[in-house]
Amino acid sequence: MEFDLIERIRRRVATRADVALGIGDDAAVLRIPTGQELVTCVDTLNAGVHFPLDTAPEDIGWKALAVNLSDLAAMGATPAWCLLSLSLPHGDAAFVEAFLDGFLALAKQHEVALVGGDTTRGPLAISVTAMGFVPAGKALQRRGAQVGDEVWITGVPGEAAAGLQQWRDGGARDTVLRARLDRPTPRVSAGLALRDLATACIDVSDGLLADLGHVLNASEVGACLELGKLPGSSALSAAIPDAAKRATLQLSGGDDYELCFTAPPSQREAVDAALAQCDTAGRVIGTIEAGLELRVLDAMGEPWQGVVRGWNHFDQEQR
Amino acid sequence: MEFDLIERIRRRVATRADVALGIGDDAAVLRIPTGQELVTCVDTLNAGVHFPLDTAPEDIGWKALAVNLSDLAAMGATPAWCLLSLSLPHGDAAFVEAFLDGFLALAKQHEVALVGGDTTRGPLAISVTAMGFVPAGKALQRRGAQVGDEVWITGVPGEAAAGLQQWRDGGARDTVLRARLDRPTPRVSAGLALRDLATACIDVSDGLLADLGHVLNASEVGACLELGKLPGSSALSAAIPDAAKRATLQLSGGDDYELCFTAPPSQREAVDAALAQCDTAGRVIGTIEAGLELRVLDAMGEPWQGVVRGWNHFDQEQR
Repeated sequence: MEFDLIERIRRRVATRADVALGIGDDAAVLRIPTGQELVTCVDTLNAGVHFPLDTAPEDIGWKALAVNLSDLAAMGATPAWCLLSLSLPHGDAAFVEAFLDGFLALAKQHEVALVGGDTTRGPLAISVTAMGFVPAGKALQRRGAQVGDEVWITGVPGEAAAGLQQWRDGGARDTVLRARLDRPTPRVSAGLALRDLATACIDVSDGLLADLGHVLNASEVGACLELGKLPGSSALSAAIPDAAKRATLQLSGGDDYELCFTAPPSQREAVDAALAQCDTAGRVIGTIEAGLELRVLDAMGEPWQGVVRGWNHFDQEQR
Repeated sequence: MEFDLIERIRRRVATRADVALGIGDDAAVLRIPTGQELVTCVDTLNAGVHFPLDTAPEDIGWKALAVNLSDLAAMGATPAWCLLSLSLPHGDAAFVEAFLDGFLALAKQHEVALVGGDTTRGPLAISVTAMGFVPAGKALQRRGAQVGDEVWITGVPGEAAAGLQQWRDGGARDTVLRARLDRPTPRVSAGLALRDLATACIDVSDGLLADLGHVLNASEVGACLELGKLPGSSALSAAIPDAAKRATLQLSGGDDYELCFTAPPSQREAVDAALAQCDTAGRVIGTIEAGLELRVLDAMGEPWQGVVRGWNHFDQEQR
């Protein structure tokens, strides 16, 4: 099974000039440009945990790469290469071809070369290692947020979670929201544009509060978020009409793969211009404060009384 | 679950001077030495497929890293860093600690730093990405074997497969053989020593004939193996007394993680010295020939009449 599937994959992948040796040997050999550091991460998607079991193979392929490119984006890195480890219950060639349709479509957008990996027999799971580079010392990190910095978010947090909730409820399903769940947009160009502007950055995979919390912990600061400043959308309002429920979803829903970052107020115009340049919506939603607390204010400027749930991606037992 | 387990892992890992940013951010940031190329690979182990379900967590940890370091060894690369993606049915801290005992013991031997990864909920599976480097243009490859070259093997092929067979049969179990299955030795120092000597190299994971076949295909040559030259061991002979069965196991059993490589006869003494230098046994077992055939001769020099099975690692359905 393995050899045939690997051949199938090899035939479809593009390469890059900096790939000395790609798919087909014991390991890939890659050339990092002089003066650049390697940025690398891995994320695994398990069927029924990280995506609903009825997700189209094309969408699984897209998402498996997207969640990793999102991590590179949060570091301000230029994506370059990836490895794919695919566990399949059966050597299902049709599944693999459809999976590759989505995976390679996103790879092409970002000029990422698939340079190796393995296929094994096992429960459906996809592990992707993404690699890219940044100029030495220039990677964005979770630490670095300063008191007085503004807190920014790209896109509309909560849309992916709303799409998942509609799927769970089994009722009407909004295709925009479902696409946000199945085909997240890694904010690669935004990450690059923010490299000299943001003081700290993270991608929102576990929910806005949880992930902003990681930035605060790493930076040893607190923050105040203002619910009234959270960006919304008509699709989100239609799916979750109740404002309190919507706020909960926006604060604690996961799988958005938006960037949450901090920057000094003096850079506000530069950040706006940088985001506009790469067609990415972004908005200030709060401020970094002294202390270690993460406060949330409601639309009236009062402490928000809502509930924040933990986010465990798609959780089979919650269906 | 994820955060606590990652913290648990982070507390135990060693670092290296070339790790700009390790566990705890969206991605790791690493410095490749000037003039070196990055060598990277990924391999996933699934419970019940790549290791028996009763394998000790320590051994699973060791093996998950070993199979990847073996791939780097086959490239003649110096291992440096790894990423670990761990899927667990439950957030079992005791399992993770024991797993790390084995994983980190091997990492320490090779000064490999664990720099990132993820933990997810799902069927037990371990995906490891290994990274290392070679001087530019110096990586050993599957292609490169020349007509007239000698074919070499390190160690004793078939011992791991014999250990697995004993486990399947449920009878007496030899601890040496079982250790060869559970704790393979990646031939890292041998790979480094062979960098300027071998013309082609591969690690034997799918069986000697299958993996040598990959070298022949990539090099567009054939080979003649002599059964009489295959290295044996008392443990192997005791476990598989029948010579024909033993030959089959040595030729087609997998999971050895020995190096099979080719070198010109003029380098025989140099190869012997290089292997001795790193305490690795190695032996010439055949010759590269023109054509694309892989021939096997028995101890009498006649074409071998035995059966070669395909190797699918541990196969649950075969128990």
